[in-house]
Amino acid sequence: MQQIRFTRVLLSCALLLTLIGCAHNDVIYQTSSIDALLQGEYGPLISVGQLKKQGDTGIGTFEHLDGEMLMLDGIVYQARSDGSIHPQPDTTMSPFATVKFFHADQTLQLLDPMTFKQLTAMLDKKLPTENWFYTFIAKGTFKFVKTRSVPKQSPPYPPLIEVVKSQPTWTFENVTGTLVGFRCPAFTKGLNVPGYHLHFLRDDHAGGGHVLDFELTDVTLQIDTSRQWQVELPDTPDFRRMNLAKDRSKELHKVEKDQ
Amino acid sequence: MQQIRFTRVLLSCALLLTLIGCAHNDVIYQTSSIDALLQGEYGPLISVGQLKKQGDTGIGTFEHLDGEMLMLDGIVYQARSDGSIHPQPDTTMSPFATVKFFHADQTLQLLDPMTFKQLTAMLDKKLPTENWFYTFIAKGTFKFVKTRSVPKQSPPYPPLIEVVKSQPTWTFENVTGTLVGFRCPAFTKGLNVPGYHLHFLRDDHAGGGHVLDFELTDVTLQIDTSRQWQVELPDTPDFRRMNLAKDRSKELHKVEKDQ
Repeated sequence: MQQIRFTRVLLSCALLLTLIGCAHNDVIYQTSSIDALLQGEYGPLISVGQLKKQGDTGIGTFEHLDGEMLMLDGIVYQARSDGSIHPQPDTTMSPFATVKFFHADQTLQLLDPMTFKQLTAMLDKKLPTENWFYTFIAKGTFKFVKTRSVPKQSPPYPPLIEVVKSQPTWTFENVTGTLVGFRCPAFTKGLNVPGYHLHFLRDDHAGGGHVLDFELTDVTLQIDTSRQWQVELPDTPDFRRMNLAKDRSKELHKVEKDQ
Repeated sequence: MQQIRFTRVLLSCALLLTLIGCAHNDVIYQTSSIDALLQGEYGPLISVGQLKKQGDTGIGTFEHLDGEMLMLDGIVYQARSDGSIHPQPDTTMSPFATVKFFHADQTLQLLDPMTFKQLTAMLDKKLPTENWFYTFIAKGTFKFVKTRSVPKQSPPYPPLIEVVKSQPTWTFENVTGTLVGFRCPAFTKGLNVPGYHLHFLRDDHAGGGHVLDFELTDVTLQIDTSRQWQVELPDTPDFRRMNLAKDRSKELHKVEKDQ
């Protein structure tokens, strides 16, 4: 009888804590910095299990730069450079990822055809300010989605701009799937990707990756607005020695946008 | 009897949580951004009470830009532009502050005379990397400390660079007191102050402020290293409209360093 009461009290405490945690956790969390990734910081920094404690939705990459990461509903998917998709266990490691516990603040039904460029131009007008963070989940039908992934590297790691010179790309036509990603403010330069950064996963798990372009035809877009951002920096000899004072915006643009 | 057991369980839960919280909280927390402050975002954003939940040590300013803030051992002091020092209640508001729960990772005894410039040059060589965050508490005797404060403003607020043109400064000679502040990495540009940023409080509470220069003679310097940084952005009409994409480094240098 006392045992039952004790268990009940413990469960109540746990529930209360979960509620308190949920109510307050509107933080965009990232491990490492984009400029460290640009310079070849592809080693193991955070596990998928640890990332799940910081969010259920997000994007990133894997140890050795082994493909593009997409996290959706708390499941982490790897889009490898051979085009295949693999859900990852909690033990898989990542050198760079941005995640958030997703709570939609608004939902848009997009029924008119719209390219990546047209969508971001529309959002730039519609979003309350360019000085906050936004997380996106866009599910639906696309006329096409063009993606790329990155091939697994071996130490000593080359910089990202060298890797993407031989990146495989795919164009998926008349496909259903989900875009996941962020819009970060201009002042995140050096740490994250200012502007829009999206990854894609096909509904049939037959492909995905870092989004280079698309045209949507019928999509439900959920937007989560956030004013809180947390950065966790690496504790590695390479990171300690890196020059992170240089402006690498042009390099980043080539790496993120070049097709 | 059951009541006592229930209370015990609750207390155990609370203690456990506190311990978990303490063990993990190595985060540098800041509210708003330095570039927003430069542009006159002096309105009330966070209370002293809320700041104390994020740290016990730090620096910042107050609503209406009413003086320089120094937090030490969980007490928040205001150094007003008339030279007076006032401990602040939890209800006082701040538009910009950076705080941390201080845990010294190393302690240096500085017994040779050293200027601000000499100290930072020594630290730049001694610290493990320029890519992490450092919080400093330096207690002891100074040959001199030169400080400034900023006078309370009324809306519509002028930019900070206009305010500091008429800043009062003080030079305290042969004084004992405490420096509190941070070294932030170069990539915090736009959000915080890259490099060293210190405030001062005299032991006798007869003065303090934003540090422009000093020469220490006998000081114990405690250093707290951190790889975690959290930023909370304002939800105000002014912040939403601000251009935070512009490089304001030169403006910041004038505001922080000009004597």
